[in-house]
Amino acid sequence: VNAEIIAVGSELLTPQRIDTNSLFLTEKLNQIGFEVVRKTIVGDDRPRLADELRQARDSSELVITSGGIGPTLDDLTRDAASDAVGRKLVYVPAVVEAIEERFRRFNRKMAEINKRQGYVLEGCEILPNPNGTAPGQYFQDEKGILIILPGPPRELKPMFEQHCVPRLLQLDSPDKYYTATLRVALMPESEVDERIGPIYSAEPRVATTILASPGDIQVHLRAKAATLEQARDIAEALALKVEAELGKTVYSQAHEGLVDVVARLFRERQLTIATAESCTGGLLAEMLTSRAGSSEYFRGGFVSYSEQAKIETLGVPAETIRDHGVYSAETAAQMALAARRKLGTSLGFGITGVAGPDEGTEETPVGTVFLALADQTGATVTKRNLGGDRERIRGMAALVALEMLRHRILGIE
Amino acid sequence: VNAEIIAVGSELLTPQRIDTNSLFLTEKLNQIGFEVVRKTIVGDDRPRLADELRQARDSSELVITSGGIGPTLDDLTRDAASDAVGRKLVYVPAVVEAIEERFRRFNRKMAEINKRQGYVLEGCEILPNPNGTAPGQYFQDEKGILIILPGPPRELKPMFEQHCVPRLLQLDSPDKYYTATLRVALMPESEVDERIGPIYSAEPRVATTILASPGDIQVHLRAKAATLEQARDIAEALALKVEAELGKTVYSQAHEGLVDVVARLFRERQLTIATAESCTGGLLAEMLTSRAGSSEYFRGGFVSYSEQAKIETLGVPAETIRDHGVYSAETAAQMALAARRKLGTSLGFGITGVAGPDEGTEETPVGTVFLALADQTGATVTKRNLGGDRERIRGMAALVALEMLRHRILGIE
Repeated sequence: VNAEIIAVGSELLTPQRIDTNSLFLTEKLNQIGFEVVRKTIVGDDRPRLADELRQARDSSELVITSGGIGPTLDDLTRDAASDAVGRKLVYVPAVVEAIEERFRRFNRKMAEINKRQGYVLEGCEILPNPNGTAPGQYFQDEKGILIILPGPPRELKPMFEQHCVPRLLQLDSPDKYYTATLRVALMPESEVDERIGPIYSAEPRVATTILASPGDIQVHLRAKAATLEQARDIAEALALKVEAELGKTVYSQAHEGLVDVVARLFRERQLTIATAESCTGGLLAEMLTSRAGSSEYFRGGFVSYSEQAKIETLGVPAETIRDHGVYSAETAAQMALAARRKLGTSLGFGITGVAGPDEGTEETPVGTVFLALADQTGATVTKRNLGGDRERIRGMAALVALEMLRHRILGIE
Repeated sequence: VNAEIIAVGSELLTPQRIDTNSLFLTEKLNQIGFEVVRKTIVGDDRPRLADELRQARDSSELVITSGGIGPTLDDLTRDAASDAVGRKLVYVPAVVEAIEERFRRFNRKMAEINKRQGYVLEGCEILPNPNGTAPGQYFQDEKGILIILPGPPRELKPMFEQHCVPRLLQLDSPDKYYTATLRVALMPESEVDERIGPIYSAEPRVATTILASPGDIQVHLRAKAATLEQARDIAEALALKVEAELGKTVYSQAHEGLVDVVARLFRERQLTIATAESCTGGLLAEMLTSRAGSSEYFRGGFVSYSEQAKIETLGVPAETIRDHGVYSAETAAQMALAARRKLGTSLGFGITGVAGPDEGTEETPVGTVFLALADQTGATVTKRNLGGDRERIRGMAALVALEMLRHRILGIE
């Protein structure tokens, strides 16, 4: 079933703001068998929005708006919806009473202007909003369904999940969709596609999308079938085949990111870590401590940016740097060993390299990074030549480090 | 003059992808006097895209598309544009020769399918694409202007700046716009608005937008006038008044972010810094080293997450932690002093606190953060009670740290 999403608000037409509600809505809609065929962003302009609603309802059975239902004169979604569907707005005292009650709970008095929020499309179902003042609206006529949602994500998301998804699931629709996801670390998009192309091409009931961001590929397998259960079975059977081909580079079958996976592994195995970073400037430590409960496994880190910091505070032997250079496998290994020794952890990690844009040489051009993982038996070092700008090189180096940790903990060669 | 932007591509209708080209285009268009009144995202669907183009051209003088001009059968923007404007596509051998030449440069042979990219709207101007294969198109008829751009940002951006902006600037248009920007650190949006509302309301020629992200407010003052010079004068005169009201919380009059400003100040004043972080887990170090040339001022940092790391490797006196607790002004001060002493820098910074979601107590609830700045005269400590989740508390603490550094370096009380 086709769906369209219209985000309302002049602030969404500035160079600084982007509509992200539609990503959440698309994900939820896809899960229950709706396909988003168009997304639009319009300003606070009643005739333009009314036009947009008419066009959308002409071409799609489900239309969802977000935003433009606050109390101010700029909030015109109610009026435009009334113009577009040809129903008048009716005043519902219970809605305003709920808003008044909400203000009382916060020891404030409701402003007169909030009464505007008491007007809804005649014949709609009112969707309660425990997280804000504006109620949502679920309207259905012979043309299709129109859902009017508030703009703030913390109001929109629970309202859609609790009040819209159940209603939409009850509709008789010919097709259901289910999406299985695989996440792959550090394999180029072209290689992923080359390897799994023959597999997914042989399954015409599944639409495959490969989404690439640096070092992190998501493979989405979306199956279409008569029931949700059938769609799920088809998608997951294909996911198993794809995973068998990609092997251990698949780090997650779900929405867990690489940081979440590594954090979970550290906690499950009761391991601890200390880091010593140069070119990544603390990014690996920041990632490892970004999840709740990280103090269980992360003891501490060194950002040994200067040579002095490496030698005096971290304890890398001066002769290692003198003999092999600061960008070398030997220095990375000594950093990892020193971090582990200083903090008495099960693992130590060291990173040194050239993030650029300056300081590259012929021997160690910009993007050269040495990564060392130390345990009680010593240190193993990986050298990478990473492409891109400073931010990308730092980000990729941290991802390589996380993947080295994941492999080590899981015993993957 | 009204403009609309249409992003083309089914991948932009998935839950994972978002159109960001339109942010760049909006910024550039606003600078030269165009107002974006609608943005649309449509899939690779020829009739739908043709409809969309017709509607957009009916309501706006300038329509820009991005994407859908690659070589594959999914790339349908050319055909849909032909349907919408009622001109046929013509084959331009020179375009294909340029593509062949590009392939030769990379020692590859052009595939037959790339010849599709040689077709353009009859009567258009061809926009060269040094960064990819697909040329852009600039088409003008009695209805208005249609610009067809490639999807990849690294192809779209230079093409728009070099080949479209100059053409659009030559159009006779009634109004010109200029936007002045002020960036404000750590002041709540409501306070900014309360203080500057009376000032901007008194200037009807300027449209004011306040964009808030945690700890960072941008005030955009967009003036409309007959010439660009007049618009700039109006916007900048108002910006001066707004800045006088907001005072030293205004950290930038341009697109320089807070990290850029602090990095620049360190380099200009030839100061150096060392950090000792607990709850921020390396985030401050990561920010301070995120810009090129940071080794000039950043010597090193400690992520002293465990008590052991604070006492043994950083050198915080054990009795400070015993007597005052790990979350205390005294511990923060000792962290800052120790980091400065260990690395011999002009400044030292220490952060300790509770990022949550656990470990809060009555005395130090989640969000309590102590920030210390040390120099040769000792350490000064600030206590903050920050709201939000773990990620927000860490991010805000790092922003407070950057702002403390900015104030100290500039001698702001």
